[in-house]
Amino acid sequence: MVRTTAGAVRPVSGVRITGGLLRQWQDRNRQATIPHVIEELRAAGNVDNLSRLLVADPPAYRGRYPFLDTDLYKTLEGLAYEIGEGYADEGARAFFDEIVGLLQRVQAEDGYLNSFFQDPAAAKKPWEDLTWGHELYNLGHLIQAAVAANRRMGDDRLLRVAIRFADLVVRRFGEGGEEAVCGHPEVEMALVELYRETGDRDHLTQARLFVDRRGRGHLEYGIMPPEYFQDHLPFRDLPSVTGHAVRMVYLAAGATDVHLETGDRTLLEALVRLWDDMVATKLYLTGGLGSRHSDEAVGDRYELPSERAYSETCAAIGTMQWAWRMFLATGGAKYLDVFERVLFNAYAVGLSADGKAFFYDNPLQRRPDHQQRSGAEAGGEPLRRSWFGCPCCPPNVVRMMAQLGDHVAAERDDTLFLALYTEGRVETADLALTVLTDYPWDGDVRVTIDRAPGRPYALALRIPAWARDVTLDGEPAAAEDGWLTVEREWAEGDELRLGLPMPVRGHVSHPYLDATRGTIGVARGPLVYCVEQQDSPASVDDLVLSAAGVLDAKIAEPGDAVALRAMAGVAPPPSEELYPELTAESSAVAETEKVSVTLVPYFLWGNRGPEAMRVWLRAK
Amino acid sequence: MVRTTAGAVRPVSGVRITGGLLRQWQDRNRQATIPHVIEELRAAGNVDNLSRLLVADPPAYRGRYPFLDTDLYKTLEGLAYEIGEGYADEGARAFFDEIVGLLQRVQAEDGYLNSFFQDPAAAKKPWEDLTWGHELYNLGHLIQAAVAANRRMGDDRLLRVAIRFADLVVRRFGEGGEEAVCGHPEVEMALVELYRETGDRDHLTQARLFVDRRGRGHLEYGIMPPEYFQDHLPFRDLPSVTGHAVRMVYLAAGATDVHLETGDRTLLEALVRLWDDMVATKLYLTGGLGSRHSDEAVGDRYELPSERAYSETCAAIGTMQWAWRMFLATGGAKYLDVFERVLFNAYAVGLSADGKAFFYDNPLQRRPDHQQRSGAEAGGEPLRRSWFGCPCCPPNVVRMMAQLGDHVAAERDDTLFLALYTEGRVETADLALTVLTDYPWDGDVRVTIDRAPGRPYALALRIPAWARDVTLDGEPAAAEDGWLTVEREWAEGDELRLGLPMPVRGHVSHPYLDATRGTIGVARGPLVYCVEQQDSPASVDDLVLSAAGVLDAKIAEPGDAVALRAMAGVAPPPSEELYPELTAESSAVAETEKVSVTLVPYFLWGNRGPEAMRVWLRAK
Repeated sequence: MVRTTAGAVRPVSGVRITGGLLRQWQDRNRQATIPHVIEELRAAGNVDNLSRLLVADPPAYRGRYPFLDTDLYKTLEGLAYEIGEGYADEGARAFFDEIVGLLQRVQAEDGYLNSFFQDPAAAKKPWEDLTWGHELYNLGHLIQAAVAANRRMGDDRLLRVAIRFADLVVRRFGEGGEEAVCGHPEVEMALVELYRETGDRDHLTQARLFVDRRGRGHLEYGIMPPEYFQDHLPFRDLPSVTGHAVRMVYLAAGATDVHLETGDRTLLEALVRLWDDMVATKLYLTGGLGSRHSDEAVGDRYELPSERAYSETCAAIGTMQWAWRMFLATGGAKYLDVFERVLFNAYAVGLSADGKAFFYDNPLQRRPDHQQRSGAEAGGEPLRRSWFGCPCCPPNVVRMMAQLGDHVAAERDDTLFLALYTEGRVETADLALTVLTDYPWDGDVRVTIDRAPGRPYALALRIPAWARDVTLDGEPAAAEDGWLTVEREWAEGDELRLGLPMPVRGHVSHPYLDATRGTIGVARGPLVYCVEQQDSPASVDDLVLSAAGVLDAKIAEPGDAVALRAMAGVAPPPSEELYPELTAESSAVAETEKVSVTLVPYFLWGNRGPEAMRVWLRAK
Repeated sequence: MVRTTAGAVRPVSGVRITGGLLRQWQDRNRQATIPHVIEELRAAGNVDNLSRLLVADPPAYRGRYPFLDTDLYKTLEGLAYEIGEGYADEGARAFFDEIVGLLQRVQAEDGYLNSFFQDPAAAKKPWEDLTWGHELYNLGHLIQAAVAANRRMGDDRLLRVAIRFADLVVRRFGEGGEEAVCGHPEVEMALVELYRETGDRDHLTQARLFVDRRGRGHLEYGIMPPEYFQDHLPFRDLPSVTGHAVRMVYLAAGATDVHLETGDRTLLEALVRLWDDMVATKLYLTGGLGSRHSDEAVGDRYELPSERAYSETCAAIGTMQWAWRMFLATGGAKYLDVFERVLFNAYAVGLSADGKAFFYDNPLQRRPDHQQRSGAEAGGEPLRRSWFGCPCCPPNVVRMMAQLGDHVAAERDDTLFLALYTEGRVETADLALTVLTDYPWDGDVRVTIDRAPGRPYALALRIPAWARDVTLDGEPAAAEDGWLTVEREWAEGDELRLGLPMPVRGHVSHPYLDATRGTIGVARGPLVYCVEQQDSPASVDDLVLSAAGVLDAKIAEPGDAVALRAMAGVAPPPSEELYPELTAESSAVAETEKVSVTLVPYFLWGNRGPEAMRVWLRAK
């Protein structure tokens, strides 16, 4: 959660999600994902890595990576939101206390805390390898958990731990100190949040220093190039998002936080430019970021292959964090369009329907004879996996799921902005209201005023970029810059009814986007759809969609707006030749059989076994 | 070179390339590439790595990888061919003698030889890490150099070294010995060649064992999965070429050699199946193999992205080695079609026009704002690089260039097969002939008999799969299975004139190949063409080719058949939206301006600075 002290709008923290898809997701988070993650963390040794340091001659660190404490921190952060909202699972509460207790005891005299480096037998010493040590990245996640616990649970134990570590970092890397940055950005947004919580400007200054120092050659490049770390150019000079995707969006989110609290316009200019370029050239239809498995990197402009989309789940979360902060900084609805696109597609797909398995990378296509990478590190599971050797994604999914309510509303002066539609209740100092909707399955949104401000006050309703023929209380209504603003002197019980029609849409690709040329992607509302082989009588590679077929597509089961049904052509079996010779006759489109095909939301794919899947279907 | 004792046809070693493009390439190899490679090998420490072992308390091994001796071996192999054909450069000859002398002195008592592992201070002991140690891969390249020196120079010094090492391997890993394989195939084809040279069946048996043992879990998988090593399934059970592309084709080439000498039909069946599947689903238009930077891997069927083609230069060489052996095993012309396609495209592009810089990976597209990977390991050069931390490709280019003449002709009973057209002279026990042609720039081929067999004898002229309207002595002629066979009682001075017309061709892609849907690739004869930004008045991404535009394309400068010129449309500037919404109206194709565009052979791209390039151009 973000609690800004400046910016165009302020986030509203008093939101409860009471029903609908997001509530189902949050219930699943409590009932399935959190217990599963705790179990896996224990099994993988993340807890033992801390507790071993309390005994003489400790056993070896378990795991390949020195940042495994962060998976505990992300889980604690998620738990703090959930417990703050009344989650009462005894195992989860005991886990929270156990880990906090361990952290308090393991923390060194000077405030240092890292279960990999505190082992006297570790291969590296503290601060020896900032490029790969992830110690500041670790601190960042510790701070975020600590702030969440303090704000939501009123529990300041972790905050005191975090402040001690942060103060050590300020002493060592602060103004006049060692000119260093961490190989993995993350601590920047955390330090700004710590400043917001404590008011200690040293933490804000430290965040600014880490942003400003980047791109000045402070890291050591071995097999990875400087771009991987966003260390090849100062942040303000980056021409485009680049390098390791998660590092990139964490850094951008942190830079946005620094802008929010310092008002630095040069940062905002760079952020807007990088954002617009990313949205125009580097995001998947699903909102996913990262086109390359190699280096888990962003890729060039328009390089967006479906089957090799990396689109890491953590990059989706980082993109949401950046988007939300850009909205807070500017009030721009376009950032929320992306937030929503990522939320319902690139982020949501990372978790299985049962809440206990995770995609690390999220392709938009699976070929019929796809060779799943196997092996010890890569795991043998053909689709989502229960855990990873680098388990950054699962607890990241947990903490984002737990704080979705913090991304529903914002306020400025006498205006409340509804950013994300869900059944829920919003309370601010000025007013309280209830939202009833089945969004994202349906675009009907009813807002009831439960407590009125007692003065003229505006409700700004976000109109998604995909919405056409919007109505307010049944009448055509026009949005301005993505907002439909209704200012009134409200009374308790007043109602508004927003209509966001959700016909099925087709999308095509920019002509420079080679990977999806000549194909159509299907969407409805904020959801991107796909065809899984289980739902098609013909091979998904042979399906041919026409514009009419897409525009005539319907909800498959009336009253249950999950799956769609569309008519598609079936191309005749292709010749076996890989590169047939072009002839003078324009290639005649052969007559095709018509079949009825079911499309499911992309985020639900891969829950019924490893068959072929396509988001982008061949166009007629 | 390959000297089979069985198979459908036997290679002819008495070929001299006397003119044309291949002669230019071989001259460049001698004058530029070999001196450059020797200089780089010295500078990088490959020579020092050996010589240091002759002093007490040797300095540290230089370089990251334990297979750096192989770059010396590949260079020695290339030198052996060149010196055998009269290359008299003193520096090169001195280098040859120096390295052979070092190898003789460094080789251990028991025959072991590896400059990384023989260092007592090395992090690993000999044979301790077969998965990554590359010791047998090293041996393979040593053998190939040794056989080349013995055959072409009559110099058996290296052969004696190689036999001692090979015999050690037979004792250790032979029948009844340790059940092991090397993480990187290569030694298989080398051991078969050693058997061909020495007649010692133990070497053939050892090669067979290494092929048969693969896929039985003998390696240790860490971050790389078993498929990477082709160790997930026995060779005969592989459904498709997979894993690390160079490992895959080296293994397949070795398995073909084992088949050739043992007659094992089960191997041939698997090889034919794997080959056909590869050609139908996994080769780039250029003949390149390897669709993924990640793991340098082959990729799934139809996964052939242009801008991210890995298509490693070494994989091209391995594909040529496999293709040639498949031809020797079966007499099939289709294998030569691929050999030729790789030679003139995916292989040739790996070397700069000046012969002193190399591509490691060979994409088919470079985007206008391509971010070149920089950094210590990746180097800062935006196109071909003078050397690499893993320099496998440069000396591999050298040795293949030096032995191109070994791939021109083959014989069987009373038939001589002309496999590759070049100006040159072919001599066998039965006959001698001269070929005059400007192939691949022109399809006119004149064959003159210089020495006749004195009995009825057939010339089998390969008719490439791309050829139409073939003529023999001016008359229409029909090929059978890719061969035009002319049997006569030849007399000295007899002439044949083969006509292979070379109109400009367009190629489209199989409908499952998403990456190049809706685009056209231009080819002429065996050459694939591309447009570099330097040669187009409009952005290469905006060029739109029509079938008529391709079929009307002409040689740009009459009398100099390198570049082509074609008329292309220019698409209007696209909207900025990445995924525009589909509308009911079928997308009207906007009128486009027409421009004249120059296309250059793909293998010549990137010699004029790092601008955008496309092989596949948007189709109208």
